[in-house]
Amino acid sequence: MPAIRKYEEPDWPAVWSILEATIRTGDTYPFAPESTEAEIYKAWVEAPAATFVACAPDGTILGSYYIKPNQPGLGGHVSNCGYVVSPQARGQGIATQMCEHSQSEALAMGFRAMQFNFVVSTNERAVRLWTRLGFATIGRLPGAFRHSSLGYVDALVMFKQLAGG
Amino acid sequence: MPAIRKYEEPDWPAVWSILEATIRTGDTYPFAPESTEAEIYKAWVEAPAATFVACAPDGTILGSYYIKPNQPGLGGHVSNCGYVVSPQARGQGIATQMCEHSQSEALAMGFRAMQFNFVVSTNERAVRLWTRLGFATIGRLPGAFRHSSLGYVDALVMFKQLAGG
Repeated sequence: MPAIRKYEEPDWPAVWSILEATIRTGDTYPFAPESTEAEIYKAWVEAPAATFVACAPDGTILGSYYIKPNQPGLGGHVSNCGYVVSPQARGQGIATQMCEHSQSEALAMGFRAMQFNFVVSTNERAVRLWTRLGFATIGRLPGAFRHSSLGYVDALVMFKQLAGG
Repeated sequence: MPAIRKYEEPDWPAVWSILEATIRTGDTYPFAPESTEAEIYKAWVEAPAATFVACAPDGTILGSYYIKPNQPGLGGHVSNCGYVVSPQARGQGIATQMCEHSQSEALAMGFRAMQFNFVVSTNERAVRLWTRLGFATIGRLPGAFRHSSLGYVDALVMFKQLAGG
């Protein structure tokens, strides 16, 4: 079972290597496949409120996620997260573990809900996983994602209430 | 009928005065009512791809809008806009005119669709207007907006295809 801890600067090469492998395929994240390391660093580490890593017992980084407010000010009680898992570590429940961790963190940070703005509809593994973890598909954005091999496909907006009220 | 033209730096005090009046009421935009001028300048002028103003014949600025990609890279063919109309100039069709203008601009800039991420559901005038202009409500975000007087209210995700295919 991986341990999840706060991201530290020496983690970046490992996190970038996972992110690079993920975005280069152009089938799950809106980041352009040709994005630079600096652009992705900004989006994953600088802009978010916090970034975490999931580590194997030997310290190997298997995945990462960020958490941030999805909107400023009067929408700032809804969080947004992005998750990435190393291609070598898929199917081990790491995304599940990170998502559950992120919901606890979100509550601890004072967020009341979590929203995913852009789940690629053809990324069935992700859609199934977020659904299982309690996220409702509240909308479908027609043709909003330019998939590297399938062309324009829909993206889903998913939402989960974390706190009552 | 106001003329719509590109924003220029000397327009800022007038645009800020409209934006300030709008966000201070805390009932339509997620920007915190206490946002600073610098924060709003960044969101309205710096971050977007382009900003426009609607001017009366005597040059008075009656409204403004920005346009930008709603997502990076593989989601970058969907535009996002924000509009603001001076409290003194409401009910004159300026928002309609700006929205129609923005759709033409979006197409000219190569966008294929337009998305509003966060239309406050209690802002009935806006919801009615965007609906009349062809935007579909594709999702409802429960309690995503903290309204200054009504508390947590829903926000709508609205979407319009601009180009075929």
